[in-house]
Amino acid sequence: MNKAIKTADANVGATLSKALFAPESIALIGASGDANKHTSLPQRYLRKHGYTGKIFPVNPSHPEIFGEVSYPSADLIPQRVDHAFIMLPAKLVPEAVSQCAANGVRCATILSAGFAETGDAGWLLQEDILKRAQRTGMRLLGPNCLGVINTNRGVAISANEALETPKLQKGHISLLSQSGSLLGSLLSRGQSRGLGFAKMVSVGNEADLGVGELGEILVDDPDTHAILLFLETIRDPQRFSAMARRAYAAGKPVIAFLLGRSPIGNQLAASHTGAIAGSNAAIEAFLRENGVIRVDMLETLIEMAPLVIGRKPCARGRVTVMGTTGGGGALLVDNLGLRNIAVAGPTPAIIEQLATQDIRISDSPLIDLTLAGTNPRVFGAVMDALMASPDNDAVITVVGSSSQFRPDRAVLPIIERARGAAKPVAVFLTPHADESSRLLSDASIAVFRTPEACADAMRAYFSWQAPVSEAVPALAASKALTAISQGTGTATDAATLLDELGIAQARTVEVAIDAHDQDLDARLAGLQFPVAVKIISPDIAHKTEAGGVLLDVADINALRTGLRQMRDTVKQRRPGARLEGFAIQEMRRGLAEVLVGYRVDPRVGPTITVGVGGVLAEIYRDVVVALAPVSVDGARAMIEQVRGLAPLRGYRNLPQGDLAALATAVSAWSRLAQLPDSRITEAELNPLIVGKQDQGVVAVDALIVRS
Amino acid sequence: MNKAIKTADANVGATLSKALFAPESIALIGASGDANKHTSLPQRYLRKHGYTGKIFPVNPSHPEIFGEVSYPSADLIPQRVDHAFIMLPAKLVPEAVSQCAANGVRCATILSAGFAETGDAGWLLQEDILKRAQRTGMRLLGPNCLGVINTNRGVAISANEALETPKLQKGHISLLSQSGSLLGSLLSRGQSRGLGFAKMVSVGNEADLGVGELGEILVDDPDTHAILLFLETIRDPQRFSAMARRAYAAGKPVIAFLLGRSPIGNQLAASHTGAIAGSNAAIEAFLRENGVIRVDMLETLIEMAPLVIGRKPCARGRVTVMGTTGGGGALLVDNLGLRNIAVAGPTPAIIEQLATQDIRISDSPLIDLTLAGTNPRVFGAVMDALMASPDNDAVITVVGSSSQFRPDRAVLPIIERARGAAKPVAVFLTPHADESSRLLSDASIAVFRTPEACADAMRAYFSWQAPVSEAVPALAASKALTAISQGTGTATDAATLLDELGIAQARTVEVAIDAHDQDLDARLAGLQFPVAVKIISPDIAHKTEAGGVLLDVADINALRTGLRQMRDTVKQRRPGARLEGFAIQEMRRGLAEVLVGYRVDPRVGPTITVGVGGVLAEIYRDVVVALAPVSVDGARAMIEQVRGLAPLRGYRNLPQGDLAALATAVSAWSRLAQLPDSRITEAELNPLIVGKQDQGVVAVDALIVRS
Repeated sequence: MNKAIKTADANVGATLSKALFAPESIALIGASGDANKHTSLPQRYLRKHGYTGKIFPVNPSHPEIFGEVSYPSADLIPQRVDHAFIMLPAKLVPEAVSQCAANGVRCATILSAGFAETGDAGWLLQEDILKRAQRTGMRLLGPNCLGVINTNRGVAISANEALETPKLQKGHISLLSQSGSLLGSLLSRGQSRGLGFAKMVSVGNEADLGVGELGEILVDDPDTHAILLFLETIRDPQRFSAMARRAYAAGKPVIAFLLGRSPIGNQLAASHTGAIAGSNAAIEAFLRENGVIRVDMLETLIEMAPLVIGRKPCARGRVTVMGTTGGGGALLVDNLGLRNIAVAGPTPAIIEQLATQDIRISDSPLIDLTLAGTNPRVFGAVMDALMASPDNDAVITVVGSSSQFRPDRAVLPIIERARGAAKPVAVFLTPHADESSRLLSDASIAVFRTPEACADAMRAYFSWQAPVSEAVPALAASKALTAISQGTGTATDAATLLDELGIAQARTVEVAIDAHDQDLDARLAGLQFPVAVKIISPDIAHKTEAGGVLLDVADINALRTGLRQMRDTVKQRRPGARLEGFAIQEMRRGLAEVLVGYRVDPRVGPTITVGVGGVLAEIYRDVVVALAPVSVDGARAMIEQVRGLAPLRGYRNLPQGDLAALATAVSAWSRLAQLPDSRITEAELNPLIVGKQDQGVVAVDALIVRS
Repeated sequence: MNKAIKTADANVGATLSKALFAPESIALIGASGDANKHTSLPQRYLRKHGYTGKIFPVNPSHPEIFGEVSYPSADLIPQRVDHAFIMLPAKLVPEAVSQCAANGVRCATILSAGFAETGDAGWLLQEDILKRAQRTGMRLLGPNCLGVINTNRGVAISANEALETPKLQKGHISLLSQSGSLLGSLLSRGQSRGLGFAKMVSVGNEADLGVGELGEILVDDPDTHAILLFLETIRDPQRFSAMARRAYAAGKPVIAFLLGRSPIGNQLAASHTGAIAGSNAAIEAFLRENGVIRVDMLETLIEMAPLVIGRKPCARGRVTVMGTTGGGGALLVDNLGLRNIAVAGPTPAIIEQLATQDIRISDSPLIDLTLAGTNPRVFGAVMDALMASPDNDAVITVVGSSSQFRPDRAVLPIIERARGAAKPVAVFLTPHADESSRLLSDASIAVFRTPEACADAMRAYFSWQAPVSEAVPALAASKALTAISQGTGTATDAATLLDELGIAQARTVEVAIDAHDQDLDARLAGLQFPVAVKIISPDIAHKTEAGGVLLDVADINALRTGLRQMRDTVKQRRPGARLEGFAIQEMRRGLAEVLVGYRVDPRVGPTITVGVGGVLAEIYRDVVVALAPVSVDGARAMIEQVRGLAPLRGYRNLPQGDLAALATAVSAWSRLAQLPDSRITEAELNPLIVGKQDQGVVAVDALIVRS
């Protein structure tokens, strides 16, 4: 049964792929005969880049456009068309979509903007065209999309002026871009240095075809060896995840550049895509856990593919830098250091081995062969030794001025050794050297224009992880859990939730607002001082401002005085508020305070965050985010990555914390994601006090937000 | 008198400048007639790039080289030579230097490596050639230097293959580089995009002529409008500082790229330059306080000059981004956000003003005119409004695909408005668009190839400061201070130093190792609990490991028990150690613990550091460094920049700390730099406890290290 569906899917995929990337006929809806208009460009670009299929301009005002017969509307074209490109104002698009559907068009790409990205009215218009297309099973790309390019078929369905380039360079990397104009920019940057693409798609608003489905077509495309993504958001995480995992399994690395890493950039990306702003860290976690490689710099996106094609993530991450230019090599070493990548200098074994060949290199983070090393014998012997060494995981070669005017001489020794090698090699060219770039690209060797992008690529490579697939045990359902997650019944408080999840809590006692001293003594029997006191009132949201919080109360006498004063102060500051009592809680001191946050991201779903408690996590942005639920091992790995928790890991001989208990608590809290029909959108433990090894963790405060 | 010296200096400078950059005759010592050898290149490059003066190849084996008469040695050249370029193996250089001096050569540039950068023997060799040159007043550039270029005179005294370029583009920025090969790389990158240089110098080991003196020549050079520095170290901070301040006063911005920002890069830069590794933060402070602009990325160094030429530092830092490509604009906004630069969207006034011209823009961090905005009327009107607005301090325009194939159309509207404008404009071109780059560069408008470098330039511009010139009051000398700083006499302890500098200390009482309970009570009268206890022993360096530290002792009973236990534990763990007593110190709780560190950097001299106390400063690398001494205002500005001290500044309504007292203490501590003949190389207060406003600061621990 499953198999049959798969086959059907594959057939659907193949038909769609053909209509999208290798159509036998293309209708250009709204094509102009005025060469000054953008809408005239696709026809010219198609012919210019060698498209051999049929082109049907559609324009009711002209019987012929640039020598090809024009039709008043798509439904009047006398044959079924594979692919239509709609370039009309938004309000004319619905009718055009219906006409395309009537023709039997297999796939329509919509350049027009003015849909979901503009707000509610645009969203409705987008829903309308989607429905019109679905009536006949016609697929839509866009709207608000700049088109499709397939260099292997001369298919350049786009008005992007990057297509003015005399010749489209072929290649083995393909791009899906949520920004239309960036598609042209990346094409242009690639072309300039001999770096070609196989297929490029501007996905626009993804009303129908999205990154997930298009990526799957690329996974099945023999011309595509790596998939590049320029992302502003994630619209369909399930399909995206399935695609990324299939690509990983197929050995086709997926490399993503993600906009919106800064708060203002994130806000802009959200408004630009008509999406709700989520957390950038959540998307990064989503990409990482689905086996996607994420780059930080724009040019890394097009430059790094050869470094990872045919490879899997690397267990260790030590890179050796060699070159004939000391300054250029130092630029790389410094940039690697800034990204916390281990730079491996030559081992004594390598130094000795080279010495037997009369080559002297010193024990330094950089193997600087100086001008003398431009000698192919020396350069080759050193590179051979590094490629054979088990003590590094990648090699960066830095080539100086010779790469500009003597490209052959400069890069041939590298190509001989790096082409098809098991160990990844990156090349940084210090001058502007397009011809050397071209030679290296042609040999499928990663070549970088800037030291920053080269170091970024190494960081991205060493951060690459296999898709996460550990099973997290199912959460045993309980009435209390269900009630809490849905906000029904009476069991809605955080304490019950913590109990159910097996997370210890600081002991808390509630006393009445008018409790007498003797009541107090009885209620507090066995409670350990110091304690903290909070007022209990349904009417007071900000307890501190109301005078309703007291910390570090040392003993019972201080507590008695404190309660009286608090009652008086709060009554004075919030005269109308109903005061129900005091919560008195043991103040636990551990080695560190940790924040554990569960949050349903509007784009990628449930996530779990671990960071240092208090305001520092926020100030230093030092939190680690993963998709929820996370296993205990996964939680442990997260904890390792929080810089500010270094003291708990024994930094500078400080006493170690109970990291096992912390990981168990993080995993437990993350399993809120498993609750059926949960309305919990946010649940935060802040702080969770971590004791010494074997002394466990204790939650002091928990906050739950339901939708 | 001073004036006369100045004039003499100016004359010396002019003579040197002429010999260096506009020599009428050049001797090429070690020139080869074999076109395959590097040593043959300078002769060819000089003629190729239009040098019209005399060239004297010097090579004892050939009477003629490439058609010019060759001489066996420089002293046999029958006329006085302005500039000699020495390309011999290191061991032959001393003799060649003497021969040049004998000829009367004014300036010798030494390509040869193998001097101070290789260690002690090389250092001696370098001293030797320096002495030989000084006998006749001949100046030296290098050794280990790749040469000198002056595009305005066809002077290209170098073997760098970047000079294979058909034509040297002229320009108004000049470069001094401590890396020789990077000079060629930057030349090549500039040439490729129409960005020319005036003068370029590889400074090598700076045995004689250094960045400071060469920079002063550039300050006086009418062809130089900005000075770029590629730095690995600072060798002569006084001269450098004088140069940077003169350049600032002359309106010629100095822009520096500094290697060694990561620990491993710093180590490498130190070994590469034969220098002692200092702190990178200290060099950054040195550059900043001398009015130098520092860039983080290599290409920013050559790209940003037009942004700052003719300008002074900007009091505020709000930038507006406009463009016709949403993705490209978003790239900029995100990169600005990542660097904490304020992105100013359009104000209501601008939106309204444009609406009257029938141009609708929305209130968003990015002014995205979309494809419709490629219309020159719209683009021009929006840019006019932004240029006139008082609500931004700089404008970034992002240009899409049109800049690649329609350079004129794409960038002309920008050039019209940005050329010579009061407000700085940066342009980011999303495609590869050399011709547009050229047009913009020709119009002296800053144009960037990558969004990262564009944002980096904005960060660098907004971080630019006028040279620091506030006076710090002189430290009143005292016997105790002098004795402490020189490590003489008995007054060597930190407590006295703190007293002298007026920094409050936590009260500490010392008691004998065998003190009885009644002794204890008497000694501790008035001491506030909780207290901390430390063992006093000249034989125990690591007190914690020896069991000699106890914190949070709550009362006198706990103290008694604690002292007994500590004595027993320490005796057991360190049987031989002399135990002299206990130091009992009040444990002060304030709002925060701060680290204040004085340190003499081996390269730039005394510095002062402020950071969060404890291990966090180290983990987060969250410290601010300035040159010492620093005024109270300067200290206050430093404190503002420590991220982790945000709580003291009232972050999230937390109670504010006594920042005035903290600034006073920081300034006082920094005045250690004023002590005459001080041997103090390091002095650290860690922690300094900061109380609430008006409650002062208290030092808990101080460490002093003398050379």
